[in-house]
Amino acid sequence: MRERKNGELRKIKITKNYIKQPVASALIEWGNTAVLCAATVEDKVPPYLEGTGKGWVTAEYSMLPASTKTRNPRDISKLKLAGRTAEIQRLIGRSLRAAVDLEKLGERTVTVDCDVLTADGGTRCASITGGYIALALAIKKLLKEGVLQESPMKCAVAAVSVGKVDGEILCDLEYAEDSRAEVDMNVVMTDGGSYVELQGTGEKGLFGDDELKALTRSAKAALRKIFAMQKKVIEND
Amino acid sequence: MRERKNGELRKIKITKNYIKQPVASALIEWGNTAVLCAATVEDKVPPYLEGTGKGWVTAEYSMLPASTKTRNPRDISKLKLAGRTAEIQRLIGRSLRAAVDLEKLGERTVTVDCDVLTADGGTRCASITGGYIALALAIKKLLKEGVLQESPMKCAVAAVSVGKVDGEILCDLEYAEDSRAEVDMNVVMTDGGSYVELQGTGEKGLFGDDELKALTRSAKAALRKIFAMQKKVIEND
Amino acid sequence: MRERKNGELRKIKITKNYIKQPVASALIEWGNTAVLCAATVEDKVPPYLEGTGKGWVTAEYSMLPASTKTRNPRDISKLKLAGRTAEIQRLIGRSLRAAVDLEKLGERTVTVDCDVLTADGGTRCASITGGYIALALAIKKLLKEGVLQESPMKCAVAAVSVGKVDGEILCDLEYAEDSRAEVDMNVVMTDGGSYVELQGTGEKGLFGDDELKALTRSAKAALRKIFAMQKKVIEND
Amino acid sequence: MRERKNGELRKIKITKNYIKQPVASALIEWGNTAVLCAATVEDKVPPYLEGTGKGWVTAEYSMLPASTKTRNPRDISKLKLAGRTAEIQRLIGRSLRAAVDLEKLGERTVTVDCDVLTADGGTRCASITGGYIALALAIKKLLKEGVLQESPMKCAVAAVSVGKVDGEILCDLEYAEDSRAEVDMNVVMTDGGSYVELQGTGEKGLFGDDELKALTRSAKAALRKIFAMQKKVIEND
Amino acid sequence: MRERKNGELRKIKITKNYIKQPVASALIEWGNTAVLCAATVEDKVPPYLEGTGKGWVTAEYSMLPASTKTRNPRDISKLKLAGRTAEIQRLIGRSLRAAVDLEKLGERTVTVDCDVLTADGGTRCASITGGYIALALAIKKLLKEGVLQESPMKCAVAAVSVGKVDGEILCDLEYAEDSRAEVDMNVVMTDGGSYVELQGTGEKGLFGDDELKALTRSAKAALRKIFAMQKKVIEND
Amino acid sequence: MRERKNGELRKIKITKNYIKQPVASALIEWGNTAVLCAATVEDKVPPYLEGTGKGWVTAEYSMLPASTKTRNPRDISKLKLAGRTAEIQRLIGRSLRAAVDLEKLGERTVTVDCDVLTADGGTRCASITGGYIALALAIKKLLKEGVLQESPMKCAVAAVSVGKVDGEILCDLEYAEDSRAEVDMNVVMTDGGSYVELQGTGEKGLFGDDELKALTRSAKAALRKIFAMQKKVIEND
Repeated sequence: MRERKNGELRKIKITKNYIKQPVASALIEWGNTAVLCAATVEDKVPPYLEGTGKGWVTAEYSMLPASTKTRNPRDISKLKLAGRTAEIQRLIGRSLRAAVDLEKLGERTVTVDCDVLTADGGTRCASITGGYIALALAIKKLLKEGVLQESPMKCAVAAVSVGKVDGEILCDLEYAEDSRAEVDMNVVMTDGGSYVELQGTGEKGLFGDDELKALTRSAKAALRKIFAMQKKVIEND
Repeated sequence: MRERKNGELRKIKITKNYIKQPVASALIEWGNTAVLCAATVEDKVPPYLEGTGKGWVTAEYSMLPASTKTRNPRDISKLKLAGRTAEIQRLIGRSLRAAVDLEKLGERTVTVDCDVLTADGGTRCASITGGYIALALAIKKLLKEGVLQESPMKCAVAAVSVGKVDGEILCDLEYAEDSRAEVDMNVVMTDGGSYVELQGTGEKGLFGDDELKALTRSAKAALRKIFAMQKKVIEND
Repeated sequence: MRERKNGELRKIKITKNYIKQPVASALIEWGNTAVLCAATVEDKVPPYLEGTGKGWVTAEYSMLPASTKTRNPRDISKLKLAGRTAEIQRLIGRSLRAAVDLEKLGERTVTVDCDVLTADGGTRCASITGGYIALALAIKKLLKEGVLQESPMKCAVAAVSVGKVDGEILCDLEYAEDSRAEVDMNVVMTDGGSYVELQGTGEKGLFGDDELKALTRSAKAALRKIFAMQKKVIEND
Repeated sequence: MRERKNGELRKIKITKNYIKQPVASALIEWGNTAVLCAATVEDKVPPYLEGTGKGWVTAEYSMLPASTKTRNPRDISKLKLAGRTAEIQRLIGRSLRAAVDLEKLGERTVTVDCDVLTADGGTRCASITGGYIALALAIKKLLKEGVLQESPMKCAVAAVSVGKVDGEILCDLEYAEDSRAEVDMNVVMTDGGSYVELQGTGEKGLFGDDELKALTRSAKAALRKIFAMQKKVIEND
Repeated sequence: MRERKNGELRKIKITKNYIKQPVASALIEWGNTAVLCAATVEDKVPPYLEGTGKGWVTAEYSMLPASTKTRNPRDISKLKLAGRTAEIQRLIGRSLRAAVDLEKLGERTVTVDCDVLTADGGTRCASITGGYIALALAIKKLLKEGVLQESPMKCAVAAVSVGKVDGEILCDLEYAEDSRAEVDMNVVMTDGGSYVELQGTGEKGLFGDDELKALTRSAKAALRKIFAMQKKVIEND
Repeated sequence: MRERKNGELRKIKITKNYIKQPVASALIEWGNTAVLCAATVEDKVPPYLEGTGKGWVTAEYSMLPASTKTRNPRDISKLKLAGRTAEIQRLIGRSLRAAVDLEKLGERTVTVDCDVLTADGGTRCASITGGYIALALAIKKLLKEGVLQESPMKCAVAAVSVGKVDGEILCDLEYAEDSRAEVDMNVVMTDGGSYVELQGTGEKGLFGDDELKALTRSAKAALRKIFAMQKKVIEND
């Protein structure tokens, strides 16, 4: 039984610069899910961008072994990056790049590391939402330090999961809901109201245009609140 | 300049059992893209399904080194499965599982290998569409051989890519279109008209509800033709 | 210039069960160094202990990429566990095992994951000290739940680094001190005052028996305070 | 029971430029064995050849998972190149280099990828024979495009397997014969009638000089037909 | 300039049980080449032999980093077994298995490790020749200890390299000769005078039937002396 | 029962330049333990030292598979460097660097490979002791050849293990003693009588200051004899 209303978000708490070393960081606690997002900046770009004047934004995602109910062995112990991890960090990277004008960033790479401390559903959405904050704070710092003259930020980016569970359209699924969802959708948007990524999967169920509409509408409503929260955190920096 | 109409598919040709060894195979030539899809069946399941009576359907995707314009080194030479590969083969696997009642399949695993011989855009959609044919033919064979009494197939599954390129909604993007698309969407559906997976990405552009509607409408129209083609191939077996 | 006295510890703060999923956890903030220690329990042992009735305690150590000044790539990106990591996690494992009667633990494995959130020197000592707390809390939980009838804990274990820097014997080196130390020693002790591990290295300098005596004396004094802190945290649980 | 005569080859069919992307390709169907050979050209050489003015010819060999009766897991799933694969691709590379004047090739690398679509014995000989065609076609293309002024080809190279099975000297072993052969020999020759490589193995039997003579005589007769076939395919290009 | 006659072997010295731990070992010093061959026996077989009553003989080959003029990095530092190593250890394994009746060996595995201490040409032949001695001594030990009742040894196996260098047929090539040889052939035989493996390669030259005859004749003459040496070492045990 | 006195060393035998290829080598036989130490010199340094004028000394440690009672699979077969190996080779590297003035060495790297032929306890101390000899001989050679004008050697370095076994302080533990030791300590010193590394571990027991004193006193007495032995070997070169 869900204690929240169908369209209600879990409580979200953001702690800026929780850790000291990276250029900027944000610890995002989203219900019981907690992800530490850290942005570091390096003065180099992948080989295919060298000499183009363009920068790069990339993301890495990882779950601490003790972040899940049953201990989850480290990738290094199997010498393989889990397929799920590859899929998620590519999604985070694409989402964050949508927020940045890579030409204005110049030939530097921002890496956003998203390390899941506790997992209770929605870790990829928390990573995108918190990762955007770390990224935006890092850019503010570069502007302040004079490394950048002009901001390369084009818009804010955030994400939320929605789904169909026991026939109901729910917003912000926690693990117990997610694991039995008929349809599961991750919606990444800009604060201007456009889609950046839309990934819906109906492995256990199927969905039609009506459900697609209901799911995206629920996501949009939730994302408005999330963008307000992001904005407050970043502006108060 | 596109020679096809915006909503027009490239020419698709399917050759059944092109190779001899697996239970069933389908070579799908989709414009200049060619993918060899092969289904093999093993009497074992992943550890977490042992003793449950349920089966498993999984997929692997790989590009031959010479399938792309510039030679693409084999994963084994880098000891790493490319992140893109992991992402794609997970999508194919989820899509194909939507077509199968895993309980009726029983404790066996069907592996669908999708090896790209030539890549000119749309390899993941060709893999899902051709992979479904290999899967369905393999099941027909198991039924004929009496290994299965009852068909576990629930529906047909196929996929097509749609996108927004130079401001136009196009169906079935080839590489030259895909690489400059503002929005790129892969639509996986059942022959009953439901979505299985919807993956839209607007890394270079963004999209709103109107475009979402136009994209899915274009995909649906194309998929009707693809389902007819699939059906003919499988029934003539 | 050191602001602390030569024998003075940095401020240590311990937060119990900072994360929710593992059996027990302790976030240890030691000056600017922060390590998240989590204990998980599994009902299996390494092959060579199966059937012996004895349990196992092991540790893994890892630094988040953004925990250091310059971003430190993940081991998985190089497919190799760094030699330094291997060395440290073996030290943590041996140290924690000294605190436990493995026969009384029974055929189960306690894994203590030490993930460094911020690194400013002394991460291995913080891992041992915090890891012992996570371990002790996990054992208390198993006793409370009736999984264990009798406590397998034999003693408390903690660690501190000492060194010779610019000719002075210093206790609890931070990174700036550690990186130019002539002699660097990690001292792991029990609360009964015995050594568990003593690892002194004089790569940049050398040391004699007098310095050995001064270093161990300094460590012992500091460890008395650390044991008191540990005790308070665990008893208040 | 063999339906062919002892010295008779299986039916060989060669399809040129079966796939579109590489510089040249040849699909060789040899009885039920089918290998796709593709030649790509890159303007770089291995480090030890840089600045020498000499080029390089190398080969990679791989079997599709569904090319064998029992599905053969991909090397990447085990993170190891199979020893047999290493052995075969080194043989193909040495054989093809015998056909090329590396100084005339200039500082470029031709990579010949041999991917086995269906395996029914003789895949290494089919790879060498088909790989030579892909290589020769690629060189013709470079000459036509003016990249090369003078042909670096010194001779044609082809291969056939011979063996002793149930006491008989057989030419061109299929899998069922190969797997019970007492002696198994791969003979790589030039169209001038010289040996390039001779690899005979008598793990299940042994052989003397008389059998060595009978085996090489049988191989030579078969290779004359194969060279005629190769020539026709390449000249008609 | 060769100081030996064309058909003359380098000096060969064999030290039995040079190292203490394995069941049997032989250090073979062959000119400046030195290989330590060690046979260990385990009471298990590869999965596909379990329950068949048959045993297995396998070999591993490795060069110490300092065995070559330029230091040769360990395979583990590149996470890859070199292709040349794979090729050689498969050859050694096949050669040694020719000497053993695997049914009489029973369900156990003999592993022969061939570690090259110094490499000056002919390491694979030294490994086969010395590996056979270690294998034969191990079997003698198992017979003496009553583990085996009946000897599974069928014949002796040894190897020698021959080649064509500067137009001359030479026996037992050292590195300086091998590296400029037009034709290079490794001949593995039984003491009964049959071929076990014949691997000739003419990458830098080519060869005809006359040279094949001259090469094998030279190898046979040398092998007679080597078999006598082997026999004396093993019988004196 | 120990046949030696508690403070007595096993018999140590050192063979210089046992193998031919590296700049210098030393085979050290220490009781039944045998380690082949080889020093090679390369004109390059790790990236972080390039341009600094400083050189580097590093070590690698490995056990031959047949060096232990039960065959020990090669690291490459598991694609992982064992944690114990990483720990040991880091210790050897730090110890040897203490003997060398890296500025006087200039921008070159000396790699000391320590390959264990037979293991019967004390392999890390034998590696340090023998590795120092290989290193010192290599430096003598570089001086003789005029590559170096001034010796970079600062002192000699050697190591010995001491421990507490059955309540007794023993020097130079063999495997049977080491595996049941309550306390196990490796002491690395200079011939000037200073400590380089001190690694004591009390996993099975614990130790106090009195035992620390007794252990280091026993080590010091033994090391005096070892330094005399080293000196004689190096001076006679």
